[in-house]
Amino acid sequence: MRNTLGHNITLTLFGESHGPYVGATVDGLPGGVKVDEDNIRALLAKRRPHGDGETPRVEKDEFQIISGVFNGYTNGEAVTIIIPNTNTHSSDYQSNLARPGHADYVANEKYHGFQDYRGGGHFSGRITAAIVAAGAIVLDMLAAKQIAIGAHIEQLGTIKDARFDPIFPEIEQVNAKDYPTIQDLAATMQAEAEYAGTEHDSIGGIVEAAIKGLPIGIGETWFSSLDGELANAMLSLGAVKGIEFGAGFELASMKGSEANDPLWMEADKAITTSNNAGGVNGGMSNGMPVIYRMVIKPTPSIGIEQNTVDMKAKENATIAVKGRHDPAIVRRIVPVVRALSAFVVADLLSLQYGREYFAK
Amino acid sequence: MRNTLGHNITLTLFGESHGPYVGATVDGLPGGVKVDEDNIRALLAKRRPHGDGETPRVEKDEFQIISGVFNGYTNGEAVTIIIPNTNTHSSDYQSNLARPGHADYVANEKYHGFQDYRGGGHFSGRITAAIVAAGAIVLDMLAAKQIAIGAHIEQLGTIKDARFDPIFPEIEQVNAKDYPTIQDLAATMQAEAEYAGTEHDSIGGIVEAAIKGLPIGIGETWFSSLDGELANAMLSLGAVKGIEFGAGFELASMKGSEANDPLWMEADKAITTSNNAGGVNGGMSNGMPVIYRMVIKPTPSIGIEQNTVDMKAKENATIAVKGRHDPAIVRRIVPVVRALSAFVVADLLSLQYGREYFAK
Amino acid sequence: MRNTLGHNITLTLFGESHGPYVGATVDGLPGGVKVDEDNIRALLAKRRPHGDGETPRVEKDEFQIISGVFNGYTNGEAVTIIIPNTNTHSSDYQSNLARPGHADYVANEKYHGFQDYRGGGHFSGRITAAIVAAGAIVLDMLAAKQIAIGAHIEQLGTIKDARFDPIFPEIEQVNAKDYPTIQDLAATMQAEAEYAGTEHDSIGGIVEAAIKGLPIGIGETWFSSLDGELANAMLSLGAVKGIEFGAGFELASMKGSEANDPLWMEADKAITTSNNAGGVNGGMSNGMPVIYRMVIKPTPSIGIEQNTVDMKAKENATIAVKGRHDPAIVRRIVPVVRALSAFVVADLLSLQYGREYFAK
Amino acid sequence: MRNTLGHNITLTLFGESHGPYVGATVDGLPGGVKVDEDNIRALLAKRRPHGDGETPRVEKDEFQIISGVFNGYTNGEAVTIIIPNTNTHSSDYQSNLARPGHADYVANEKYHGFQDYRGGGHFSGRITAAIVAAGAIVLDMLAAKQIAIGAHIEQLGTIKDARFDPIFPEIEQVNAKDYPTIQDLAATMQAEAEYAGTEHDSIGGIVEAAIKGLPIGIGETWFSSLDGELANAMLSLGAVKGIEFGAGFELASMKGSEANDPLWMEADKAITTSNNAGGVNGGMSNGMPVIYRMVIKPTPSIGIEQNTVDMKAKENATIAVKGRHDPAIVRRIVPVVRALSAFVVADLLSLQYGREYFAK
Repeated sequence: MRNTLGHNITLTLFGESHGPYVGATVDGLPGGVKVDEDNIRALLAKRRPHGDGETPRVEKDEFQIISGVFNGYTNGEAVTIIIPNTNTHSSDYQSNLARPGHADYVANEKYHGFQDYRGGGHFSGRITAAIVAAGAIVLDMLAAKQIAIGAHIEQLGTIKDARFDPIFPEIEQVNAKDYPTIQDLAATMQAEAEYAGTEHDSIGGIVEAAIKGLPIGIGETWFSSLDGELANAMLSLGAVKGIEFGAGFELASMKGSEANDPLWMEADKAITTSNNAGGVNGGMSNGMPVIYRMVIKPTPSIGIEQNTVDMKAKENATIAVKGRHDPAIVRRIVPVVRALSAFVVADLLSLQYGREYFAK
Repeated sequence: MRNTLGHNITLTLFGESHGPYVGATVDGLPGGVKVDEDNIRALLAKRRPHGDGETPRVEKDEFQIISGVFNGYTNGEAVTIIIPNTNTHSSDYQSNLARPGHADYVANEKYHGFQDYRGGGHFSGRITAAIVAAGAIVLDMLAAKQIAIGAHIEQLGTIKDARFDPIFPEIEQVNAKDYPTIQDLAATMQAEAEYAGTEHDSIGGIVEAAIKGLPIGIGETWFSSLDGELANAMLSLGAVKGIEFGAGFELASMKGSEANDPLWMEADKAITTSNNAGGVNGGMSNGMPVIYRMVIKPTPSIGIEQNTVDMKAKENATIAVKGRHDPAIVRRIVPVVRALSAFVVADLLSLQYGREYFAK
Repeated sequence: MRNTLGHNITLTLFGESHGPYVGATVDGLPGGVKVDEDNIRALLAKRRPHGDGETPRVEKDEFQIISGVFNGYTNGEAVTIIIPNTNTHSSDYQSNLARPGHADYVANEKYHGFQDYRGGGHFSGRITAAIVAAGAIVLDMLAAKQIAIGAHIEQLGTIKDARFDPIFPEIEQVNAKDYPTIQDLAATMQAEAEYAGTEHDSIGGIVEAAIKGLPIGIGETWFSSLDGELANAMLSLGAVKGIEFGAGFELASMKGSEANDPLWMEADKAITTSNNAGGVNGGMSNGMPVIYRMVIKPTPSIGIEQNTVDMKAKENATIAVKGRHDPAIVRRIVPVVRALSAFVVADLLSLQYGREYFAK
Repeated sequence: MRNTLGHNITLTLFGESHGPYVGATVDGLPGGVKVDEDNIRALLAKRRPHGDGETPRVEKDEFQIISGVFNGYTNGEAVTIIIPNTNTHSSDYQSNLARPGHADYVANEKYHGFQDYRGGGHFSGRITAAIVAAGAIVLDMLAAKQIAIGAHIEQLGTIKDARFDPIFPEIEQVNAKDYPTIQDLAATMQAEAEYAGTEHDSIGGIVEAAIKGLPIGIGETWFSSLDGELANAMLSLGAVKGIEFGAGFELASMKGSEANDPLWMEADKAITTSNNAGGVNGGMSNGMPVIYRMVIKPTPSIGIEQNTVDMKAKENATIAVKGRHDPAIVRRIVPVVRALSAFVVADLLSLQYGREYFAK
């Protein structure tokens, strides 16, 4: 389906950037899952722009849970969260000029000109606020099962952070930070983003994520594989143009004898002494941390004049994108990656162990 | 679902490496799609090992279409193809020693020791023979709509081929070759593979694929996006550990002004004068060629002794994998990539235009 | 999935009877489908209680479309409609006493006591307001394709209406009526309902529905059949306990020579001169009107004292249901049947012809 | 999807009546489920015609399990069973004359004349052999969880059997019989069928099914309800034209005070002292036996001359159906009802408790 992720525990998204609300419906949670609104607020805060080198469009994200929660716990039915869009400047947007790097032109063709062009409509990063709000509940639900999901900025423009330790990823450390990096790079990275902004340009980067605590064997052979489902979820983010697991693209130049992860008995379970597989064999979790990296393209909305087309006049044109944009959105994507990953993991767990696995 | 890909036009896989058959069921094709068994044979031949630097297990792949085809055309019902497994040496496989880099240990844990361990069972590349046989029908169906899908070996070990021209990918050229590369690299790459074999080791590489002729707007926003569905399909292959679209991971170091693809009117449609997006905006086809790259890990089955575990005794052990293995399977994955991509494309087209789109 | 109906054009429901809102998300509609809020209001009005022999809980149903519609037309994205619950008397409901005929006890067991027990929570007929609001859009979309869906009260308690003419069902006639019957039975039926109310009891009945204008061949063989999908949708209504198509259960006593519908050429298409099949052969529409009947059980909430259990004390108890209830809800279910049927039909059409079938 | 039933544990069907094989793929079973081929043979035998008043087309049903089973137990992967079609007389079938009551004309329109018309192709009852073979495995799997599914002929033509005791249905008794009725009616019913045959006509009837041992709360609110999913599965059988649960259509004339099932504490669970709900409240199992009735239309293939159309010449014609047909197929549908019901129940259980629920 279009806006629905998952099979048994599902996330459905709705809303447009400049419509009254964006929202998400989470279905398939059992009764009795604790819903902590402060944790939702905290994760939304991590997604919110912080000023320096980020958009001045600041949304309060005053979400409302309108179904599925009763007295602070899930009641077993679909949980729907809506978040009002308040700080919109629709006049910044023109219906006729396609913004290069955006879905404007494609949406205009696909929807015969009926799409909501304001702020990118449904193709806007604004929708990810709903993913984050809903995902906070699922991240808490997984935490109660000792499953932790963390992510950090591995690269922003030319600045590179360290990578996660493949055996003991620093999940708690990066999740605790307001500017999620392993090394202390907040100031340097923010400066890089601000500088791009002063040039009316933008930069991209890489987000690295890790999941630990997954039981062995999560993920379905062939077409609902753990890596395949995570890849589908991540690439659904318009800014993500690639994903790799474990040693990823470096495996192309490795020998089997270097790439294979040797096994070793630890108590009654086998571990691997390296993690080039990124915790996934045959599409299933192997008990080691799941490690994956997503490339984030530079924000397409830039002030520099670019060639484009007038979709109404069907003629060539130029555009210098107005509006309030992030020269870099990499940091803001980090909580979105964690939230989306939580849905994939919870859904695959539920296929194996059922929804009751998460019940009190 | 586990073994099913797609929503409206679906592929379901079954079979184990050393069972009587591997097979595939394709559901959702309209009546009247031509089924050319010679084209199925031809695509299966491209997947078959060619000796030099490839496994001596050669299967005749004498497939049988047991449903869904009547008088040479689809009859509107599920098409099932079965392929017998004839050339099996099950004695090469031990049930207790997990092969590093394989799913053996995970399968043993997930299936409580009931998995078919012979030749990797359902986690074997042998299953891809069924994907290729079924995919040949869908590739022909797409060709009738002027949609072409090609793939080549962009890298094998240390040897690199050119990349596809992002605007005019050399699809017909590489598809016509027995050893699919853009440059003339067959001998060099085969030597690289053979050499790895003499060392009882293995190598990996990169496969690059391209789709042209797709209408604009194919792919579903957010969670059935064109890139997301392709990524899910590709990562379902155990050997694939990463995927990138267009400029892919290079986008991390690019500026928005470099990464954005400028639009330009050509007749009544807009094209882009570069293709860093790999033909995908907002998860939908933008009318340009869809270009994506998959990293293939080195074949995990190697003769070199490696540390592993004895799954029955629950103790450490070493293994030097016996059996007949490919030191490199990259060439053999190329037709699998084309076949799986065909299913993704046909399914997404059918959601937009219906199955009737493909009817005579 | 739990609350989602359909494959390509989907309906997702959320909300509880005494929560802030009930709502529905419709996904998969193309851009450019006209959305007429007056028609939504009109259909909601048909579902609203009218006083005589119906609940005094009257909701204004002031719905709000919060996504997917732009300038009066669908914008191609998920359409979400929310309806506030205003007129609630939660104090009428006790958390410990299970109401016989309701899902109270089952929900308490399934959701471990975390369910929202107020007014039946998500198991309340209140949710059908969201089905009706969303369905009005789809009914209009089908009408633009000359597909009409009608329903009437075939039986209320002991009072029986005529059945639809199986070849020329009186769809427009019954849809136009405030009290949908073929014969003039409003007063008699309302009296029957009122009388049951005065006895603190309730009555049930039968709703008959008809669809005309469907192309031939809609519905998927075996497991997404037209009749199967309609049955699944109808039985999702807690009050519906059975469904039959065409001659239905009377077929058990008929001979093949009486039951078979003879074919007859009319222009270039064949019609049948009888319609015992109810317009469905082999799970697919055959071009004749689709005719089906649903039995509606008597409203379970009655004032008469009944044996039940105290779910907290785990002991026997008695209950005389308080609160404001309908002695008969049959009339109010009629627009719900039309709305749900519209979703099934639109979805199955889209699998065959694509969403574009419904685009401008 | 077309030929797939279920969400997490799925059944996919393929094959045509006169093709080489009919088959079924069952996906989602855990490793370690015992597969008893004798039980598969035994259930297939119950579906096979017995001569008197049944078709002389007798298939040996020599099924072959070609995947998913290893050493007598499921190996965790898709289980595929194929059954050869041996005893076919394709010459009995004409491609141009539509048989009234069959899907011939609809299939010809939907598939543009490419359908396999021989013996009804994929719309043939022959496909149910695959359902029965696969279902036998699932029935055994459920039995290991103390879940039993039984069915009997409640009516054949004018002959009526007793109904199941709604609280203590005689499941084992009817399942043990070769001619499944509660009362001793084999001879009478067979005579009724034979007599219809001598008149070159056919008769229908009613099959009643019961499920006991289901945990409370199985079935998903609204759109994957237990009754909705069972109805969808049953109506996928071309011969089934209606279904009712518990008191079914009789509820239309009952008062709430008669229809509601009073609750009563028994140990720590509540039972109901009547079962008019047929074991289902709010779409979920309530712990009581699930009781449902399906009407079976008379076999459409009859020797009496009927009006029909010539699909090629597009003109009126008459037909007296040749070939070897059952004047009554009600008895043969009984094991199909049990098998299909088993899939629905296993799938819904797995959504709640996971596939591991069924693992050793």
